[in-house]
Amino acid sequence: MTDYELYCFGESGNAYKCALMLELSGLKWMPRYVDFFNGETRTPEYRAKVNEMGEAPVLIHGTKKLSQSGVILDYLASQSAQFAPQGEDERREALRWMFFDNHKFTGSIASLRFMVSITKSGETPVTEYLRGRANNTLKVVNSHLASQAFMIGARPTTADFSLCAYLFYGDEVPINMTDYPNVLAWLDRIRALPRWRGPYDLMPGRRAG
Amino acid sequence: MTDYELYCFGESGNAYKCALMLELSGLKWMPRYVDFFNGETRTPEYRAKVNEMGEAPVLIHGTKKLSQSGVILDYLASQSAQFAPQGEDERREALRWMFFDNHKFTGSIASLRFMVSITKSGETPVTEYLRGRANNTLKVVNSHLASQAFMIGARPTTADFSLCAYLFYGDEVPINMTDYPNVLAWLDRIRALPRWRGPYDLMPGRRAG
Repeated sequence: MTDYELYCFGESGNAYKCALMLELSGLKWMPRYVDFFNGETRTPEYRAKVNEMGEAPVLIHGTKKLSQSGVILDYLASQSAQFAPQGEDERREALRWMFFDNHKFTGSIASLRFMVSITKSGETPVTEYLRGRANNTLKVVNSHLASQAFMIGARPTTADFSLCAYLFYGDEVPINMTDYPNVLAWLDRIRALPRWRGPYDLMPGRRAG
Repeated sequence: MTDYELYCFGESGNAYKCALMLELSGLKWMPRYVDFFNGETRTPEYRAKVNEMGEAPVLIHGTKKLSQSGVILDYLASQSAQFAPQGEDERREALRWMFFDNHKFTGSIASLRFMVSITKSGETPVTEYLRGRANNTLKVVNSHLASQAFMIGARPTTADFSLCAYLFYGDEVPINMTDYPNVLAWLDRIRALPRWRGPYDLMPGRRAG
């Protein structure tokens, strides 16, 4: 029986954050495909019944309906202790990196990748702006990972799922990642976790290309 | 005696989120001015000793040092029950809006205001992009506030402090706010709370202009 249902689509790195944690936690879950590219998230029905923010992912678990990837990761950590931060200090340290991810990291990398690799915008003043912000935040994460294996210490937690997701889209992310060797090594460590799978293997979608 | 020290500067709406909650909670706090415009947050010393993310605000409380406004608000809610969400469901509902704020709302409004009103960029493709995103998110918040006084119900919580801060910079925010009457009425309700003060009255800075 499926316990968790995730509104998602393969191209959404924000959904992949949650899909990856569900899968690696060994939880029973099922993707519910959101037809983003035909405007499903922007319909009045979606906003009224699924998410007033007009976004994926959304997690359904029994009577609970949760949105925002950071909240879903926090909730999954309460369900499966495997990737949960331990204690209040660790919880806030993970939360700090999840806010950093939403504000600066995903906030720039996801939009840059969407423009260049999905809408095929070409290079524009906006992609230049976003790439500048993306590189600034990648430097912060690369420095942070110089002295530890995962974002808040020696083992993976919610903070890692939040930050890593868009970077598993490979060439779709138009950034020279060789400038960030600690980030690449950290992605390899995540990729080596039992049950790891890429975004298009975990969620349905039409692969951008 | 001062219990809390907040690394901040008047122009930072992210710092104002925390300063406003500290002040309205009646906590004893002191601003510690960060000389952002002369590059203090970008120095190796600041990154090494204060915040590796190179950002304000940072809250010092005893031996604790916290960064990211969302984490600071969450911590202050644990210290003064006044604006704390009640129970796990409310906590996650507040967190959901704080992530939305960081990712989309502050993520666009703060950068737009910084470019237009602080660096005097004029209108560019980037400001056009940011204004589009800002208006999309303001619509979501305006709709949400049609049926309730504050973001997660009838009383103000951390979610309100996170979302409102940049909107208290008035004309510095180059958006036509009359399109969002529910947001304006909500700002009036926050402004009417005991001890409310504007950003430049709570934190030192050189007023942009």
